Amino acid sequence: MPSLLLDKEKCLENIERMAHRAEQHRLSLRPHCKTHQSANISNWFRDFGVSKITVSSFRMAQYFARAGWNDILVAFPFHPGELKSLQILSEKCLISILVDTPAALPFLNHIRNPVGFYIDVDTGYGRTGVRTENPELIEQIIVKARGNPQLHFKGFYCHAGHSYKVTKQKERESIHQKARSDLAGLKKQFSEHGPRILYGDTPNCSTQNDFRGIDEITPGNFVFYDLVQLSLGVCRQEEIAVVIECPVAGKYNHSRQILIHGGAVHFSKESLTMGGRTVYGQLVQRNENGWSSPVQNTWITGLSQEHGVLEKCGELFNQVSIGDTLLFLPVHSCLSANLAKEYGTLDGDRITNIHSN
Amino acid sequence: MPSLLLDKEKCLENIERMAHRAEQHRLSLRPHCKTHQSANISNWFRDFGVSKITVSSFRMAQYFARAGWNDILVAFPFHPGELKSLQILSEKCLISILVDTPAALPFLNHIRNPVGFYIDVDTGYGRTGVRTENPELIEQIIVKARGNPQLHFKGFYCHAGHSYKVTKQKERESIHQKARSDLAGLKKQFSEHGPRILYGDTPNCSTQNDFRGIDEITPGNFVFYDLVQLSLGVCRQEEIAVVIECPVAGKYNHSRQILIHGGAVHFSKESLTMGGRTVYGQLVQRNENGWSSPVQNTWITGLSQEHGVLEKCGELFNQVSIGDTLLFLPVHSCLSANLAKEYGTLDGDRITNIHSN
Repeated sequence: MPSLLLDKEKCLENIERMAHRAEQHRLSLRPHCKTHQSANISNWFRDFGVSKITVSSFRMAQYFARAGWNDILVAFPFHPGELKSLQILSEKCLISILVDTPAALPFLNHIRNPVGFYIDVDTGYGRTGVRTENPELIEQIIVKARGNPQLHFKGFYCHAGHSYKVTKQKERESIHQKARSDLAGLKKQFSEHGPRILYGDTPNCSTQNDFRGIDEITPGNFVFYDLVQLSLGVCRQEEIAVVIECPVAGKYNHSRQILIHGGAVHFSKESLTMGGRTVYGQLVQRNENGWSSPVQNTWITGLSQEHGVLEKCGELFNQVSIGDTLLFLPVHSCLSANLAKEYGTLDGDRITNIHSN
Repeated sequence: MPSLLLDKEKCLENIERMAHRAEQHRLSLRPHCKTHQSANISNWFRDFGVSKITVSSFRMAQYFARAGWNDILVAFPFHPGELKSLQILSEKCLISILVDTPAALPFLNHIRNPVGFYIDVDTGYGRTGVRTENPELIEQIIVKARGNPQLHFKGFYCHAGHSYKVTKQKERESIHQKARSDLAGLKKQFSEHGPRILYGDTPNCSTQNDFRGIDEITPGNFVFYDLVQLSLGVCRQEEIAVVIECPVAGKYNHSRQILIHGGAVHFSKESLTMGGRTVYGQLVQRNENGWSSPVQNTWITGLSQEHGVLEKCGELFNQVSIGDTLLFLPVHSCLSANLAKEYGTLDGDRITNIHSN
């Protein structure tokens, strides 16, 4: 059956490169673990001095707390449905949450243990967060939170996710500089609280070189990268550390289509438009080092629950047989990894994740 | 956290309705279990006389065999990567597989137990199967398979999935009639083998009334239905038996956007275009019977890993508060269900599935 295959060496290089960037810019690295969701992989960060992590749900926080992490930021606006999980986790380790409205604070009135919070701020992405143009609201949150002796204002958090909407380095730089300067402004304006500035999406953390005012970065996807990041010019193809290995299950002479066992329950339905087509994965060729660069114009262009279809795949059609396995770069590695119960490595090792039994 | 909520009554009605249709047209019902992937739910079919099932992977076959099913069709073209699973399963129960090329047969040479096979035929969908225009290839498969004493030709299988590409009943009927008449033709042409004709996708099995020549239907999605089926005119809104329950985690006055905890890891990235927008789910309102009809123009229009965003949602913005939970019809219930570790019911029961620990 289809499986997610990891090039551990590339993955470690990706971690090392980001750790080095952080060091170079005097930033802490608090990697986001939503991409790999694996205790095994999170441990690889420890060799680079990483002692704190970011996750996107309390379920992940519980999993990583069990794996020994004791400084965990749940980077999702807190809502009261998570109160019970917060109470349990805050007994065991240092938990921080995001808050972006005073309306969330009353739900935290009865927390029994210290909890840190960051104010989620929006510099233009428009998904969550207090707009940086609205410091009054920030002030309100800080003042209101002061009434809660267990709740500690730690600083500001910003995910400038609109970096995913641009492909030119110049446009990305402008998004980044707006965010950076807004954040630096908040750091100054609220300096009496000594706020830490947490920042980070993979596109900006991988490519920018001016982090003045920022204390800590929280990128996640860089650990694997994927076709989205490649298409944005954020990573090089040789930095993508995961492929999905899929058996060939059919060849159809009349249409020259190849059927693979590999569908939406392995790749996810995340797609990219490439060469004018909707694409769910791109072929790479197995070689002695792992795999090759992406094979031009050779994409999965049809995807149902378990089936993947390659159309107009040129010479490949003549080269493959039923029972061969093909390797594909995923469009969005976070979502593909979330569908895997474990990962294999090129060396044949098995890496467990949050979904492993 | 977000959860998949099932209206068990609707689900049972959907099962009853399909069982009744099958009975009315003198068809066996071999439901596809890839939608619910739940032993619990599969057992609900037993009350309607169902004794055999369809699945789309050997992993599912193993799961349902453990749950006591002993006539299981793995409706995916067989490839040798599954040989070991086939050997193990065929010791325990009656396993059938799909074959659509003579090239797959040599991999079955050493099977130790009887295995049934259906020839997957293509009446125009173009995903898998021998084209019905190519009976010579069918003949080749049958002849070649005869050399294997453990391999038994059972009949033909057809998934006319192009029924998902049309919205008019007339167009669907033309797809269906082409498939039905092709299948009836094969039944006649290969009558010396007494082939059974298996057919079925939810759109056709839910709406057609002429099944002459067909013996058995294998629909899956009808057990839950979803926005795709509703948009195709295949089900009524009150027949959709699942919603995703999502906590409200944010409200943003400047944009009048609502943030829900509910993302691609809960809904899947399957989308529909509705009102000119890309939509990942549609709001329903909770009521004493479960939930209402879909709320007009109130959709999830932004979806990242854990975040869902509702834009331009009118009065709803004023009505909801952080901590409320909202219910959404999923676009594609098979993929949403595949992301859930269990399902809740309106009565508060817990239904396990293949992903439950």
